[in-house]
Amino acid sequence: MISAGLECRSPRMFSVWSLIMTYMKNSDDAAMAASGLRDLTPLLKPRSVAIVGATPDSRRVGGRPLSFLRRFGFPGPIYPVNPKYEEIEGIRCYPSVTKLPESADMAIIAVPASRVIEAVRECQVAGIPSMTIYTSGFAEMGGAGERLEAELKSIAEAEGTLVCGPNCQGVANLHDRMVANFSSALSRDDITAGPIGFVSQSGLFAGIVAAECHQRGLGLGYLNSTGNECIVDFADMIAHMASDSRIRVVAGYLEGIRDGHKLRAALAIARKNQTPVIILKVGRSDESARAAASHTGSMTGSYEVYRAAFHQWGVIEANDVTELFDLIELFSLSPPASKGPRVGILTNSGGIGVFCADKVNELGLELPSLNPETSARILEKLPAFGSAQNPVDFTLQALSDAEAIGWHLKHMVSDPNVDVVLAFFGVQMLNVDALCAEIIKANKVNEKPIVVGWMLGDPSLPGQLRAEGIPCFNDPLRALKAIRALVAGPISMREEVLPSDVDSAVAMVAQAVHSGKFQLGEYDSKQVLSMLGIDVTRGRVVANSQHAVAAAEEVGYPVALKVESPDIGHKSEAGGVRLGLTTSTAVRSGFEEIQDSIRIFDPNALIDGIGVYEMVTDAIELIVGIKQDPVFGPVILLGSGGIMVEMLKDSVVRVAPITKSDAHTMITELKIFPLLGGERGYPKSDIDAVADILARLSNFSLATDLISELDINPLMVLPEGNGACAADALIVLQVEQEKFTTN
Amino acid sequence: MISAGLECRSPRMFSVWSLIMTYMKNSDDAAMAASGLRDLTPLLKPRSVAIVGATPDSRRVGGRPLSFLRRFGFPGPIYPVNPKYEEIEGIRCYPSVTKLPESADMAIIAVPASRVIEAVRECQVAGIPSMTIYTSGFAEMGGAGERLEAELKSIAEAEGTLVCGPNCQGVANLHDRMVANFSSALSRDDITAGPIGFVSQSGLFAGIVAAECHQRGLGLGYLNSTGNECIVDFADMIAHMASDSRIRVVAGYLEGIRDGHKLRAALAIARKNQTPVIILKVGRSDESARAAASHTGSMTGSYEVYRAAFHQWGVIEANDVTELFDLIELFSLSPPASKGPRVGILTNSGGIGVFCADKVNELGLELPSLNPETSARILEKLPAFGSAQNPVDFTLQALSDAEAIGWHLKHMVSDPNVDVVLAFFGVQMLNVDALCAEIIKANKVNEKPIVVGWMLGDPSLPGQLRAEGIPCFNDPLRALKAIRALVAGPISMREEVLPSDVDSAVAMVAQAVHSGKFQLGEYDSKQVLSMLGIDVTRGRVVANSQHAVAAAEEVGYPVALKVESPDIGHKSEAGGVRLGLTTSTAVRSGFEEIQDSIRIFDPNALIDGIGVYEMVTDAIELIVGIKQDPVFGPVILLGSGGIMVEMLKDSVVRVAPITKSDAHTMITELKIFPLLGGERGYPKSDIDAVADILARLSNFSLATDLISELDINPLMVLPEGNGACAADALIVLQVEQEKFTTN
Repeated sequence: MISAGLECRSPRMFSVWSLIMTYMKNSDDAAMAASGLRDLTPLLKPRSVAIVGATPDSRRVGGRPLSFLRRFGFPGPIYPVNPKYEEIEGIRCYPSVTKLPESADMAIIAVPASRVIEAVRECQVAGIPSMTIYTSGFAEMGGAGERLEAELKSIAEAEGTLVCGPNCQGVANLHDRMVANFSSALSRDDITAGPIGFVSQSGLFAGIVAAECHQRGLGLGYLNSTGNECIVDFADMIAHMASDSRIRVVAGYLEGIRDGHKLRAALAIARKNQTPVIILKVGRSDESARAAASHTGSMTGSYEVYRAAFHQWGVIEANDVTELFDLIELFSLSPPASKGPRVGILTNSGGIGVFCADKVNELGLELPSLNPETSARILEKLPAFGSAQNPVDFTLQALSDAEAIGWHLKHMVSDPNVDVVLAFFGVQMLNVDALCAEIIKANKVNEKPIVVGWMLGDPSLPGQLRAEGIPCFNDPLRALKAIRALVAGPISMREEVLPSDVDSAVAMVAQAVHSGKFQLGEYDSKQVLSMLGIDVTRGRVVANSQHAVAAAEEVGYPVALKVESPDIGHKSEAGGVRLGLTTSTAVRSGFEEIQDSIRIFDPNALIDGIGVYEMVTDAIELIVGIKQDPVFGPVILLGSGGIMVEMLKDSVVRVAPITKSDAHTMITELKIFPLLGGERGYPKSDIDAVADILARLSNFSLATDLISELDINPLMVLPEGNGACAADALIVLQVEQEKFTTN
Repeated sequence: MISAGLECRSPRMFSVWSLIMTYMKNSDDAAMAASGLRDLTPLLKPRSVAIVGATPDSRRVGGRPLSFLRRFGFPGPIYPVNPKYEEIEGIRCYPSVTKLPESADMAIIAVPASRVIEAVRECQVAGIPSMTIYTSGFAEMGGAGERLEAELKSIAEAEGTLVCGPNCQGVANLHDRMVANFSSALSRDDITAGPIGFVSQSGLFAGIVAAECHQRGLGLGYLNSTGNECIVDFADMIAHMASDSRIRVVAGYLEGIRDGHKLRAALAIARKNQTPVIILKVGRSDESARAAASHTGSMTGSYEVYRAAFHQWGVIEANDVTELFDLIELFSLSPPASKGPRVGILTNSGGIGVFCADKVNELGLELPSLNPETSARILEKLPAFGSAQNPVDFTLQALSDAEAIGWHLKHMVSDPNVDVVLAFFGVQMLNVDALCAEIIKANKVNEKPIVVGWMLGDPSLPGQLRAEGIPCFNDPLRALKAIRALVAGPISMREEVLPSDVDSAVAMVAQAVHSGKFQLGEYDSKQVLSMLGIDVTRGRVVANSQHAVAAAEEVGYPVALKVESPDIGHKSEAGGVRLGLTTSTAVRSGFEEIQDSIRIFDPNALIDGIGVYEMVTDAIELIVGIKQDPVFGPVILLGSGGIMVEMLKDSVVRVAPITKSDAHTMITELKIFPLLGGERGYPKSDIDAVADILARLSNFSLATDLISELDINPLMVLPEGNGACAADALIVLQVEQEKFTTN
């Protein structure tokens, strides 16, 4: 029996994995090396396949794979396993995987849930390194199912077995004729392998994708359903497919992942290979967002973090099912990217032209004026009632004069004011072949993309254009959304890291945790910030009103008094704050009042004293901070200060790490950015100081895992050159959570 | 020759018009009686048609109508007119309309632009009351074309001739077999008349609609293209179609209208007849919005006013072309309205279920928990791995057990927590007829709407469902958008009017215009507001610093000083404002400083003095006002005060008149409404006082046409029970505009 350990795979089988490994070795990023990505070669390109629970009835789940593998022409041996049969469809059937003539590379498991563990163990004994488990009845059922899956997982992990599923429709690698996905959408006869790799956490959704691709004449390369992701997950699939040179676009249906940084590593591989990745993320209002709730919890629902991560790591996000299909179609054609947002429009309908002008605007694209030379040239061949301005309306000319349309297109695509062209034709039934030839010719003029809108016209054109790599959509809005995707393009990840010394701050936090604290009050939190190089309002904590007056005279009036206590998170609500005190009398009575209020609010609260701080005025108030996301780890927050953040949801998040340059981009995304930028008579704020603080927080967030939350609220942003300064701060420490085991 | 004047139409021909007249007589609304809506019977239901410029070549525009009228079986006489022919297609051709055996009801005019005026005059001589002019080369060309159209208009108006066009594709009333629209989309043989009335300001767009309706199996009743709207316009068409009992839904493609209140009257007729009206408005970033520019001009782009008007008058607005088609399809089926926003979802794909849950949320709908009884009943017949919670996932059950799907549907539609049901099936190829029967049966359980999503399944089902009035879409998001439209429903217009005496304010404004003023300064504007019953900050205008101190002591410190001048609109920019003065010394020096600043800013400015006003504190600042929209007339504005209105676009508009109840709704639409409503520890504001002011401004705006703009900025809104008070105000008067004539 041949051992199927990873070390003895043939060099050819390892092509994809070695590419991943090469990339990872070349990368300086320690996170990448520890990504946890797996070599899926035995699963997705097995040399032989066993089918545990095979049956002759091809309508049953256990019957499909044999039928599919044979119909798609799987080149290696197939071993049906079922003690009930001697043979199935003329192929010898084995009573157990341990009786096969050789060890298979992959086993499909289609037996009842109660028998899965036994089947997996037998496969392990037989030296089978990878399995696809169709069977349902595991974690998705909760209770006993969850326990069963935990057992499966531990068995698989012990032997390093690759398990896809359970509760999945399986995997298919169509280029290599390995179809172990039982979706009925694959039961058609006319399916050809193509450049699209798809991974789905929903089985039926994968079937929908297969059916839609077939209907659009697009070829699938992979159709992988990951189900409960006991071992093999979404990120593994993305990395594998994006490393296969036959795949031009990778797409996925995603409900949720467990490890954000594994996804990050997979996406880095996709960027390295210049493979666009499109994801439809569902479960956007997931309850999991509430886990990190606190008074600014509303700023970072987990979907917001997914969006930020997608944006940071170059994922093209689809917002609905049709958009997902359209983006897959678009990128499967490998169209050139657009160098800018300026859309030139040519149309046979002035009405659609006006509609498109609106949508260009709504989608954040631009409608440039054409170069006068372009308009003049177009006008030379335009009919009497057309328009040579953008959008160019050539009225009924396409019905009779395809050459003129080619002329217009050529001049528009050559216009220096135009980055990308939309050519729209409504109800065009005549002159179609000549028109098609002209569009194809114009598409070769230069590298600017041409996208065609073809609505209710002769159905033969779209396929001809797509064969030439020209995207074509039957709705003008969908065509414009495709253009937007070509303009946005994937974002390259910057790895620049801001140098800063975080050791003393990390040590102080560790000391606090060690001494049993749950959070640091304002004074201690500000000390941590100071160690990170972040300015804080001057002041100190005092024990009596006499010291308070002395402290006030030290920092200078007006001052703020704030209770310092590890037990009080929201000081204002506890009556623990007095602001703008201008005299020693006010400081004295303020001190007493705070003492009284706290005594009433929480008689048992431990009070470290009362802080006396300078007041910073003429500043714009922001909120900045760190939160822990259960999937993506530390997240950096930025928001408008005060009541506005609640009402106007003016906040931005990023997954750490971020660079100072990322931080600058974050700031421009705030709704109140014009205010910071010095519009409407306000002084220009010290934006660079804010960016610096965000980058320092990012560094700190990655240097310690003892912080559950850090809030600077408010951060007082002063006019340019004067910095920004934390007027209040709170650090909540990571408390060891009680761990529940599943048995 | 029979006279074709309006007075001699047969009673039957006037059915639609008499319905309109009946409604208008019953209405108390004076605006309605003066709406200017026209009787389109001669145009849309002519007994006979002449074709001026008829040719035997049916590919040419002049050749189409004869061919179409005959193919659709127009029941009356058709008179081709062209001196070149004796007959066309076996029908006698006349050299001139004056030579016809009788006067036709309608003439199609398809002659070159240079000959149109002559043709129209001849038709008038021949007593033809209505014309459809296909010819282009009029106002859309500017210059000479504009002058030609002005002449055409004046000739038509002189004789009361109904002119549709010029520059249009014509009209079609398919129920009455009158097809005078030359769109090639009507050249199919298999077009049947149906319940959809469409009017388009774009010719080709109408063709797209015809082609799409045909593709979806939906019947058109009207296909009217209005072109340049020299006489007959969009509103006339809406009113006519909405009054035809064979029409269940009226829809339109709209670039812009000239008279908002005529549209209002047309829409009132549609509401009266319970005919939904769907409009796709394009040209949303129309330059015309800039006409009303001023410092708050950014608040009321004209599209914003269109949107407000649509919302107020019950138009269902489509946001893109596909949505337009989907809404047409939806309402052509006359589905019941949904009583609420709670959507119950049944699906064969858990993945699509999660996707829909997200979209329900994003579309402002709700995903209720099912009644436990409903879940229990559904569970009785659910397969092992399904889910009986909303969204209910019945997995593969529909493949084998249609009856169970009917069971689930019946229980879901009966659930008191559910207002409307989405049943989604992906890639469903088997068991289709049985499933269809179950859906139709469930749809009869009660009046709650069921909308079906049918994606990539057997294509025979959608048509069967639609035949039973059940909407069916091939994309889950489009199905949910249809559900949203069923939930929103048309809004009924409230005619309640707030009583208030505006005579003295109107008189004061008239007096100011009479004396040659262009605007009223703060003091005078506040006087007008007081006359309208709106509170203003106390104070008076003084001529020297001594009087200023006296005035300050009268109103009480702190005070504000503000220059009073008809020549200075933005007082702050001119250095004409000092706020928060607390002593007589500060008032004295403030007075001097303002005088100096103004002298530098504009040495020629006429200064009435300097106003001394009380300061209102602890208030929330809003902006309220009146603007004149060129289409809709007076518009009432409400926005957040200060810099926020610019940055956050926190503003709401309504077309006057509005009631106090409308005003309350406006206030709830502000982004800062939670602040006014007393959230986050703020005191509850006097919202009712704001609503009262908005309604008073609405009354005033309709009582005078001498106001071009009125701004109260800021309106200080005090805590509940304390009212709201104008701290500054500006009234810009209507200056007679120089009129340009076109000859």
